[in-house]
Amino acid sequence: MSAPVNLAAVAADLSDLWNPRVVGRINEMLVKVARIEGEFVWHQHDETDDFFLVVRGRLTIHHRDRDVVLEPGELFVVPRGVEHCPEADAETHVLLIEPDGTVNTGDAGGELTAEPRILDL
Amino acid sequence: MSAPVNLAAVAADLSDLWNPRVVGRINEMLVKVARIEGEFVWHQHDETDDFFLVVRGRLTIHHRDRDVVLEPGELFVVPRGVEHCPEADAETHVLLIEPDGTVNTGDAGGELTAEPRILDL
Repeated sequence: MSAPVNLAAVAADLSDLWNPRVVGRINEMLVKVARIEGEFVWHQHDETDDFFLVVRGRLTIHHRDRDVVLEPGELFVVPRGVEHCPEADAETHVLLIEPDGTVNTGDAGGELTAEPRILDL
Repeated sequence: MSAPVNLAAVAADLSDLWNPRVVGRINEMLVKVARIEGEFVWHQHDETDDFFLVVRGRLTIHHRDRDVVLEPGELFVVPRGVEHCPEADAETHVLLIEPDGTVNTGDAGGELTAEPRILDL
């Protein structure tokens, strides 16, 4: 990374939904930006916590027993092993941080599983 | 963490400068919010990269050979072992992510060295 990463600019450049773009690395963790809309899949990550920060829009992280709603400037960490399902009623931009190699759909797999892409760092 | 963390609200609640508040954890990494103003100290972290995201204000990360300037919504990672000195001309709020146990002043030490404080998670 030689220059600052502008989250809004990266998100605006994303053409597809639910397909995070890698924008940086903190040790073994990747920093990603995603443009999302609609409902993702129920899944869990047994090996890692799952960090979400909303940059624009509104994100609901459904849990089996409750919903966690994030507005812009709000973050939440889903602990490892906790089943969840992200959903956004309208276009939403999020910052994600997770270990290199983490599969976005966790244990669920399926057609929304993304191949990580690396932005020019 | 049982509820979302609102970055602006946490920052507004911080009474002292350069004293990050821990607001969450991603595996072994701590997520922190700091209110900063003025010049920090030149330092480096030999064991970890150093993540900065500006929430409000403007942050200049001086490097020995250049400055990196972050506006709100912009992030930057200083690689491990790279000497740097953060500075903010006016009140600035930042999100920091670094491994548990990281000392804010790195190899420099001194009076700005902060004792990590943990917000109700």
